[in-house]
Amino acid sequence: MNASIAIQVLPKVETDSEVCRIVDQVIAHIEQTGLSYYVGSFETTVEGEFEELMELIKECQYIAVKSGCPSVMSYVKISFKPEGGILTIDQKVSKHHR
Amino acid sequence: MNASIAIQVLPKVETDSEVCRIVDQVIAHIEQTGLSYYVGSFETTVEGEFEELMELIKECQYIAVKSGCPSVMSYVKISFKPEGGILTIDQKVSKHHR
Amino acid sequence: MNASIAIQVLPKVETDSEVCRIVDQVIAHIEQTGLSYYVGSFETTVEGEFEELMELIKECQYIAVKSGCPSVMSYVKISFKPEGGILTIDQKVSKHHR
Amino acid sequence: MNASIAIQVLPKVETDSEVCRIVDQVIAHIEQTGLSYYVGSFETTVEGEFEELMELIKECQYIAVKSGCPSVMSYVKISFKPEGGILTIDQKVSKHHR
Repeated sequence: MNASIAIQVLPKVETDSEVCRIVDQVIAHIEQTGLSYYVGSFETTVEGEFEELMELIKECQYIAVKSGCPSVMSYVKISFKPEGGILTIDQKVSKHHR
Repeated sequence: MNASIAIQVLPKVETDSEVCRIVDQVIAHIEQTGLSYYVGSFETTVEGEFEELMELIKECQYIAVKSGCPSVMSYVKISFKPEGGILTIDQKVSKHHR
Repeated sequence: MNASIAIQVLPKVETDSEVCRIVDQVIAHIEQTGLSYYVGSFETTVEGEFEELMELIKECQYIAVKSGCPSVMSYVKISFKPEGGILTIDQKVSKHHR
Repeated sequence: MNASIAIQVLPKVETDSEVCRIVDQVIAHIEQTGLSYYVGSFETTVEGEFEELMELIKECQYIAVKSGCPSVMSYVKISFKPEGGILTIDQKVSKHHR
């Protein structure tokens, strides 16, 4: 594993319930990749190989649009360490969720 | 409750273990406020009243610096709805963590 | 000067023209502080003393709300170096804008 | 034109001058694409077609690593409107830079 990303997708729709419905579709897409992921309050973190994560960022935008919003604004963090050995979600989060 | 924030603090230090040590101090500070918070992989979300959260953003920077880094870079998201009724951490996260 | 911030304010309104109208009011507020600032495509950078910039982040949220949006989402970057000597906007941008 | 992105690349190196050297290489790469771009203080905005911008995000990470940092952290904003008609850099920035 040489990368992790965090992604927040903000569909341009009017109601909070519509935002949630579309974000849930994006998260469902992330889940079906089989990658390790973690849903937070503003963003979802995913870890894996760099190239597949870059592809996933792109797919998430298409999923949002296909789910019914005319435009989307996304906020993405990318952590990339080609030699591997980045901090895992588990290393960063687990001790705080006991 | 009329606001929630997400905060990522990146202390300018050399090793991952030093980053973790300082970030842990920031999270400890957030915890002792008694506010509802949620630690994610890249950022920690906190919810409460707008003014106290703005104060907390400032305090987190001071905590990082006092914990031993010469400079700090932070990434903050602010959701503010004066009339109240913002989506809670629990509403956004719980269904995905069963 | 010991800090600089970048701030993107996203008012929750329906049309692009309404977004622009409210963002312009936030930028007008930043301008009247007399601080050095730089308007970018997604965010506006401001440099100054840490405490006054933390206050400015808070004020920008109030300005957005008072300008006519029921809620606002903001994305903020904070660079803080208590001893001073952070890179200035001018040092970072000028060579690319000749 | 149906998309615009903003990208901040933070190479994990020790000195500000090394950060600047690597960021300059990333900006040089963006420039040679021929796309319309705008260098800000914390991030560079680029506008174009969605697929080419997604490719560019990936390339920028590789450029940073090849320029000499063992790891990189990037912060990316993506605005995507498949039907076209997003606000251009010029529409958003020009009136503030007279």
